[in-house]
Amino acid sequence: MNEFVHQRHKPPSELDRARELVLAVPQLRSNVNLARIIRTAGCCGINRVITSSNQRIDAKVARDSLEHITVERRRSLAPVLRELSSEGYSIVGLEQSSGSRNLHEFEFDRRSVLVIGHERDGIREELLGNLDQVVEIPVYGMPYSYNVATATSMALYEYCRQFPRG
Amino acid sequence: MNEFVHQRHKPPSELDRARELVLAVPQLRSNVNLARIIRTAGCCGINRVITSSNQRIDAKVARDSLEHITVERRRSLAPVLRELSSEGYSIVGLEQSSGSRNLHEFEFDRRSVLVIGHERDGIREELLGNLDQVVEIPVYGMPYSYNVATATSMALYEYCRQFPRG
Repeated sequence: MNEFVHQRHKPPSELDRARELVLAVPQLRSNVNLARIIRTAGCCGINRVITSSNQRIDAKVARDSLEHITVERRRSLAPVLRELSSEGYSIVGLEQSSGSRNLHEFEFDRRSVLVIGHERDGIREELLGNLDQVVEIPVYGMPYSYNVATATSMALYEYCRQFPRG
Repeated sequence: MNEFVHQRHKPPSELDRARELVLAVPQLRSNVNLARIIRTAGCCGINRVITSSNQRIDAKVARDSLEHITVERRRSLAPVLRELSSEGYSIVGLEQSSGSRNLHEFEFDRRSVLVIGHERDGIREELLGNLDQVVEIPVYGMPYSYNVATATSMALYEYCRQFPRG
């Protein structure tokens, strides 16, 4: 028989270099989803979240992720995506679209921006032209769509799996 | 320039066989976490969730995942874990413990039970002896712990990645 003993609050895993993944988040319907995304990003070692929303970030949900994440508020995402693209970032949308690739098989560039969509409307039409790639997560059953914070968590997990040391 | 076009509500990915992953969930602090876990399980094609909680499952969060998931309520999880073990299931805890393995590198058995822990207290001490394996997800930054539904989503994603067709 295995004998497992709790070890809560283990020290975090170390990164050899700062994460080069940036999250771009539109105005969402739900403040809780935004805060959940930021908490997960914090746990994944992400330092930079850009959002076109003016939503409040609920500290009870986001916890102390905000101590290490800079949240940049922009009026719209298109200009900053173009800027990041010119700095060598791959712009990757998380969306169901024509030409979207399966996250299971997708290879991230280390230097990437992950663009999240709105709960109902997904990534705004006018941003689709800014994307280099689109990834989607296979859905196998009802209700046939992941919550936006859940989908973001899965994509962040996959990125960290590919770059476990940053 | 890539031209991506929205394709929302694509048909789901098909499974060649029913999923053999079972989720075991204790009494949680938050009904919303339970419902979020069930929604994600539904999207992943899971059919069976066993819980020792008597919590209400918020249909606004779980959506129609419940049409295809059987939620079995048990007084406690230990007997059913022993039962499933004798039916050939690997019992895998999602927890930080001594001897826990990194989810990034963990190979699931197709026939597995994923045992979730309580938000604060993790997997109850008396269940640790029922586990064949413990997996944990690397954390890189504050707040140093994933929300329970987030961690569950990541583990379900990893399982589906390993068994994309069931």
